[in-house]
Amino acid sequence: MSKQILILPGDGIGPEIVAEARKVLETVNEQFSLGLVLSEALVGGAAIDATGVPLPAETLDAAQKADAILLGAVGGPKWDTNPDFQIRPEKGLLGIRSNLQLFGNLRPAILYPQLAHASTLKPEVVSGLDILIVRELTGGIYFGQPRGYRTKEGGVREGFNTYVYDENEIRRIGRVAFEAARARNKKLCSVDKANVLEVTVLWREVMNELSAEYPDVELSHMYVDNAAMQLVRAPKQFDVMVTGNMFGDILSDAAAMLTGSIGMLPSASLDANNKGMYEPCHGSAPDIAGQGIANPLATILSAAMMLRYSLGEGAAADKIEAAVSQVLDQNLRTADIMSEGMVRVSTSEMGAAVVKAL
Amino acid sequence: MSKQILILPGDGIGPEIVAEARKVLETVNEQFSLGLVLSEALVGGAAIDATGVPLPAETLDAAQKADAILLGAVGGPKWDTNPDFQIRPEKGLLGIRSNLQLFGNLRPAILYPQLAHASTLKPEVVSGLDILIVRELTGGIYFGQPRGYRTKEGGVREGFNTYVYDENEIRRIGRVAFEAARARNKKLCSVDKANVLEVTVLWREVMNELSAEYPDVELSHMYVDNAAMQLVRAPKQFDVMVTGNMFGDILSDAAAMLTGSIGMLPSASLDANNKGMYEPCHGSAPDIAGQGIANPLATILSAAMMLRYSLGEGAAADKIEAAVSQVLDQNLRTADIMSEGMVRVSTSEMGAAVVKAL
Ligand SMILES: CC(C)[C@H](C(=O)O)[C@@H](O)C(=O)O
Ligand SMILES: CC(C)[C@H](C(=O)O)[C@@H](O)C(=O)O
Repeated sequence: MSKQILILPGDGIGPEIVAEARKVLETVNEQFSLGLVLSEALVGGAAIDATGVPLPAETLDAAQKADAILLGAVGGPKWDTNPDFQIRPEKGLLGIRSNLQLFGNLRPAILYPQLAHASTLKPEVVSGLDILIVRELTGGIYFGQPRGYRTKEGGVREGFNTYVYDENEIRRIGRVAFEAARARNKKLCSVDKANVLEVTVLWREVMNELSAEYPDVELSHMYVDNAAMQLVRAPKQFDVMVTGNMFGDILSDAAAMLTGSIGMLPSASLDANNKGMYEPCHGSAPDIAGQGIANPLATILSAAMMLRYSLGEGAAADKIEAAVSQVLDQNLRTADIMSEGMVRVSTSEMGAAVVKAL
Repeated sequence: MSKQILILPGDGIGPEIVAEARKVLETVNEQFSLGLVLSEALVGGAAIDATGVPLPAETLDAAQKADAILLGAVGGPKWDTNPDFQIRPEKGLLGIRSNLQLFGNLRPAILYPQLAHASTLKPEVVSGLDILIVRELTGGIYFGQPRGYRTKEGGVREGFNTYVYDENEIRRIGRVAFEAARARNKKLCSVDKANVLEVTVLWREVMNELSAEYPDVELSHMYVDNAAMQLVRAPKQFDVMVTGNMFGDILSDAAAMLTGSIGMLPSASLDANNKGMYEPCHGSAPDIAGQGIANPLATILSAAMMLRYSLGEGAAADKIEAAVSQVLDQNLRTADIMSEGMVRVSTSEMGAAVVKAL
């Protein structure tokens, strides 16, 4: 019973970091006889350059057939000014999320004790930080219709997007969040803008309805502006947060940056059957691409998440996570998490160290 | 030539903090013979309780006739669950913004040297912080049509809002931001999500067009998720930021909280002729309302902004700001900014101290 793993290196630092995660996967594949069969495909800017479109039919096909997907990152200034909005790297990523209905995006913001100094926040505010942000990923304003760009009467240009959710979309992401909270500290904060936006009035309503099924989980609601503020003021008040696609994009990045080490944070995007795509929280960082200085640990930890959530291989995942912790204990640091007294290593040296620790 | 100032206490701590700002205004009114005529009206929850609606016709009428408006804050749990979405305190605030076309929202995030310790961020990250966020306030998803809540075929509930801007709306807020940047450090960062949302593709386009008229201002663009991250990572990289209504709501609260003393931050909402409404950045804080412990300084500084921007009384504004700085130098602190060795004072004691310093 072999398992097909599709690897999508993407753009910028994507290929470099994914190469290291691949070595790690190959190592545990042997050690645990996982039967993983790894293959690669093009997505994003790399796919535009090679085929003219960000999500070639073969890539989508391979993604649909795979048991799980590991992605590097997509995007870069090279493609940002493409006049055809459909031919942008991001459309490749969004196309996979949407076609595979990977609606459940899990974004942990965890402060590694070894990297406590890396945060821009005071130690007492962030030490021990462990938040899980559950973001809806296939609906909301990212995909709402109608959308577009047109010229009104009088020649005035106008752009428009639609923020829409129905109760089923809200309920399924709500369940993911309630279940996650149940498995953690049983506190769920739902983030909306129900004092202004009708779509989030429904969001709040459905979360309240679901709450009856999860009496053991304490549900609270917070407006998105206040949530952004509270993440800065007292982030440890949160256990699990659940929100829509756009608010989740913003809040999960803010939460990740609280740790000061976004190069360490993995993410999972799951469908209803826990099939998923896994990727680091950071982006394609075109400014440092090709220099061999990017941190591969977020991608390696994404591979661990993949083993745990989509492949049911918790032991292999544990082992990878322990190996990552061990290389940090060995004081090895890539540039982004470097500090005095530590040993600076390159992308591939870091990957090799994790393999060695395995 | 008397000037009509409309005071809207609103809800929660609104009445308490506005009362102190009123004393301050009355003091400079005499000292500088400003000819201010102060009157009050109901808005928000207070207006709902008294009249059944959050923005009574007389309040709107008085707001339209006034030369400037000073607002406390609106909202509270008492009205949050009102089933009629139109009968919510926030609708009063939004109604004034929209009817008076107060599209230019200026939200400074300034760290007072005397309160440097209050920030949850490390001193080196925030010392000297001085960012101005320019938020579009009468368009975008807050006001876009169509919007609503309906039951689809099969009885499925759905909520929807529309994020829409035309080029004229973008251009006029863009000019406010470019002018503000010109008067400061000449750096403007425009925040959008142009890799996903068509409406913000237009936003970016118009900002680029405007940039030709302001060759002395350095324009950059940033995606909103990255902006949320950069505010936590290195906030001092920013001078002026400009963005739409929803992103501005979120980012301005995050930026304000970087200072740790949101009780100190004023805001202005201006129309095309610099007529405006002024209010503290913090909300109505229903949890501490009526206890006499709220910080009135953000409202007092809002009154100073009002004198400067809408009434052309810069000298009186300067004097108020100097008085606020002086009470901080006297070590007087309300609960929210209290720290060891300082003297804790009540809302009215703080107001009285500012009056005395004047
Ligand atoms: C690249 C972009 C389309 C994407 C998003 O906005 O979802 C990214 O920011 C993310 O959070 O995964
Ligand atoms: C009270 C609410 C409607 C308002 C907004 O969202 O604009 C507030 O958060 C603000 O920022 O002034």
